[in-house]
Amino acid sequence: MKNKTLGQLAELVGGQVAGDPETKINAVATLEKAGNGDISFLTNQKYTNQLKTTKASAIIVAKDFKLNAKRYTLNADLLIADDPYYALSQIVVCLHGYREHPKTGISKNASIAKTATVPENCHIADCVTISENVSLGDRCFLYPNVFVGPNTKIGNDCILYPNAVIYDNCRLGNRVIIQANTTVGEDGFGFATYKGKHHKIPHIGSVIIEDDAEIGSGCGIERGTLDDTVIGTGAKIGDLVAIGHGTKIGPHCLLVAQVGISGSTTLGSYCVVGGQAGIAGHINIGNGVMIGAQSGVSNSIDSGKTVLGAPAVDAGRTRRTYVLLPRLPEMHKSIKRIQKRLDQLEKSEKS
Amino acid sequence: MKNKTLGQLAELVGGQVAGDPETKINAVATLEKAGNGDISFLTNQKYTNQLKTTKASAIIVAKDFKLNAKRYTLNADLLIADDPYYALSQIVVCLHGYREHPKTGISKNASIAKTATVPENCHIADCVTISENVSLGDRCFLYPNVFVGPNTKIGNDCILYPNAVIYDNCRLGNRVIIQANTTVGEDGFGFATYKGKHHKIPHIGSVIIEDDAEIGSGCGIERGTLDDTVIGTGAKIGDLVAIGHGTKIGPHCLLVAQVGISGSTTLGSYCVVGGQAGIAGHINIGNGVMIGAQSGVSNSIDSGKTVLGAPAVDAGRTRRTYVLLPRLPEMHKSIKRIQKRLDQLEKSEKS
Amino acid sequence: MKNKTLGQLAELVGGQVAGDPETKINAVATLEKAGNGDISFLTNQKYTNQLKTTKASAIIVAKDFKLNAKRYTLNADLLIADDPYYALSQIVVCLHGYREHPKTGISKNASIAKTATVPENCHIADCVTISENVSLGDRCFLYPNVFVGPNTKIGNDCILYPNAVIYDNCRLGNRVIIQANTTVGEDGFGFATYKGKHHKIPHIGSVIIEDDAEIGSGCGIERGTLDDTVIGTGAKIGDLVAIGHGTKIGPHCLLVAQVGISGSTTLGSYCVVGGQAGIAGHINIGNGVMIGAQSGVSNSIDSGKTVLGAPAVDAGRTRRTYVLLPRLPEMHKSIKRIQKRLDQLEKSEKS
Repeated sequence: MKNKTLGQLAELVGGQVAGDPETKINAVATLEKAGNGDISFLTNQKYTNQLKTTKASAIIVAKDFKLNAKRYTLNADLLIADDPYYALSQIVVCLHGYREHPKTGISKNASIAKTATVPENCHIADCVTISENVSLGDRCFLYPNVFVGPNTKIGNDCILYPNAVIYDNCRLGNRVIIQANTTVGEDGFGFATYKGKHHKIPHIGSVIIEDDAEIGSGCGIERGTLDDTVIGTGAKIGDLVAIGHGTKIGPHCLLVAQVGISGSTTLGSYCVVGGQAGIAGHINIGNGVMIGAQSGVSNSIDSGKTVLGAPAVDAGRTRRTYVLLPRLPEMHKSIKRIQKRLDQLEKSEKS
Repeated sequence: MKNKTLGQLAELVGGQVAGDPETKINAVATLEKAGNGDISFLTNQKYTNQLKTTKASAIIVAKDFKLNAKRYTLNADLLIADDPYYALSQIVVCLHGYREHPKTGISKNASIAKTATVPENCHIADCVTISENVSLGDRCFLYPNVFVGPNTKIGNDCILYPNAVIYDNCRLGNRVIIQANTTVGEDGFGFATYKGKHHKIPHIGSVIIEDDAEIGSGCGIERGTLDDTVIGTGAKIGDLVAIGHGTKIGPHCLLVAQVGISGSTTLGSYCVVGGQAGIAGHINIGNGVMIGAQSGVSNSIDSGKTVLGAPAVDAGRTRRTYVLLPRLPEMHKSIKRIQKRLDQLEKSEKS
Repeated sequence: MKNKTLGQLAELVGGQVAGDPETKINAVATLEKAGNGDISFLTNQKYTNQLKTTKASAIIVAKDFKLNAKRYTLNADLLIADDPYYALSQIVVCLHGYREHPKTGISKNASIAKTATVPENCHIADCVTISENVSLGDRCFLYPNVFVGPNTKIGNDCILYPNAVIYDNCRLGNRVIIQANTTVGEDGFGFATYKGKHHKIPHIGSVIIEDDAEIGSGCGIERGTLDDTVIGTGAKIGDLVAIGHGTKIGPHCLLVAQVGISGSTTLGSYCVVGGQAGIAGHINIGNGVMIGAQSGVSNSIDSGKTVLGAPAVDAGRTRRTYVLLPRLPEMHKSIKRIQKRLDQLEKSEKS
């Protein structure tokens, strides 16, 4: 943990100080938990009330914050940033840094095939298995019980957390992170049903994970039946996500926890898929598509759209539907009542 | 397996025998599978019909069971208990006991850092990794391939099943159980998107799992970004549950399989969350809230409420909506028909 | 990889060649990626357009394909098969084969209890744990870090991928495949709540996985409370599926990724459950039932039905509801407008 002045931090993030630039900062904390020497942040208006009680020494805020600040007696100095959340992330990196991985070197208790290429600057923990013809790039960290199957190629600076399993013939780019207990390249769910039996189709495609992608814990990324499954450059995938065989996730997509995507579907770049959403197989999702949590997507979606609901349609429309759904009983009663009034009117008209 | 008389079991659970207290009981079984010497139970009315055919020697029933019993010729003796399900659990413990864990001692094939504290009465299996500065309480069982990251503290009598992964700096209380292939403390899904890149935010919070909590298989419990993620005392979490960074699960909550909760959300005590339900981030769920299976909760909920549906509202209301949802085509037709009748009426009124 | 003529492949699958039976085929590929020497297939009409551009040397098609083919100038020969997808699977097996498992023999770095039975023709990798009284059939492959608990019996020709965990007393038939990071036989989610505490019920049932069943990655198959959980013969289960305690999955069922089934539910044979669908506990699903993706099933279903939606009802009905759901705002407006027109009519009638 390092010690910085607020002024130094402002310089780091290209922001401005409102208050004392000499204020000493040594840690980042939430508004609620922050104390003396801590810097905090406000990016979600839900937490504005905590400004009244926070004991943070400094707070990162957006440029348009100034006026609102008048409602509180703030003892904290302000760091005004163009993008407060990005500034926060830079300051966390500066003051706390990323996890330091155990420098185990190449353990004698790891199983490394003779045909595998493992640079000496890698750290391979106990009980790791590196199979035949695997090649690892420089400075990789493989935590205990990681399994890398035959012929898989891994780039530089990758981190595979404990019990991550990469099957055979997969390809990971540079700076790829795989969190614990995640599986990459297992056989896809592909069976040919014939005369009452489900015959397993060998999956000769594989999985390609491009540079800077990160996969959360407990995920399953199926290998392709014939073609490869692809996780694009810089894509980030949450925990317990299931990706079907042959599906392509475009660069810089964000997939939140428990998302499920069937096989042979394509997502463009910069899509965001909310938690527990499901996407059918064999469809195309354009670039920059936003899919709300728990949505069910069964048709292709054009670039730039924001959808929500099951079935997923335009998000604004679904939000209006969501308001009305719980009023369905009243709507039903209204229709019944209307029918009676109509009966009455028609009766009196005839008479 | 032990041998008890029905009278002894009744005494154990504070219940009464209707029948022969000398009946020998040596096992617990379902009504369907039970045979001579088995005790069974009836707590779900769906199974009442099985009373006609069961071969159980005795059946645990509730106090209000007596009258219904007249409809059947029961050969079984009855054990009448205030809380039949709790009585069942006591009797299963008495006759069958909990799993006996392999007493491996501290394996020479485990990797234990010199700076780690591991009491001699712990059982640490092969291929377990205990990192620097870890401390374990008394009588813990760590199954094969468990990983415990640096600085993590674990209390007494904890059980970590195979391939459970606990990242660095986490804290587990006493009698915590982690089932196989579960991950605790992986990095949260937190990225600051800036100029087209998702920048990883170091997660300096950790995970605290309090006394008597149990986590199922294949779960992912993210560590907090700044603040800790907390699983409260006595909380029980099912399989394949995803808990977001900084979320607090209150004491004695029950989370069924495949629940997903986003980050920075708080659940009070004694909440019950049904299977596959999803809860948004940054909201507050009160005490004793019941959330139905597959619900989608996006707003805070007051204590004591029971909600259901996506979006989740009062459960009674959603149940009425659920009845009407499949009738939407008929409602739509009714509206069309009503419009025609109105047209007709208005026309004849004008003429 | 082998080399065959198209005629030889046609003979293998019992199909007919339209074109040159001497065409050399050495690999299978998608229409998009196929090149010279590749055979491809058309079973999903979505891909018909790719016939215009594919460079495949041959294409597997159905018998009714002939007429449509006239719309394209196809350079590819055709292999006409009764069941093109099954023919594809046979040809992939012929030309590419299944994964060849590393023939590790029985590793000295595996932990094998003295009381366990492990035939010499098995391959047991490093860091595998085989507990007391386990018995393995012939020719099993256990990948690294697999754990097999006490008294579990495994049949012939089973494949357990890395980090698969099978708890105590389970039984796997012949040719069972368990993908990586899956857990079988963990304790079920069963607690008796008494005086504010959730008391853990020992789970004395176990898990039985019958012949030819396959379980995907990251699944959790709970052991039964009293009775066994059963996965039937030839059933195939996708990734991240959660099966509750005591549930019986009938023979040849297909459960797609992220399905969740609560405890004590029974599925008949040949059911198909779509991705992310949830099924409540203590209900009966008949034979051949089709349950759509993301459905929520809370009541028993008769054999042969196709259901969809949450709550799940007849799929045709739900599809009509799905069309109308996003039109709920318009329906609501219509009702309001109708009410005004009625007010007007009633008013003028009275005057």
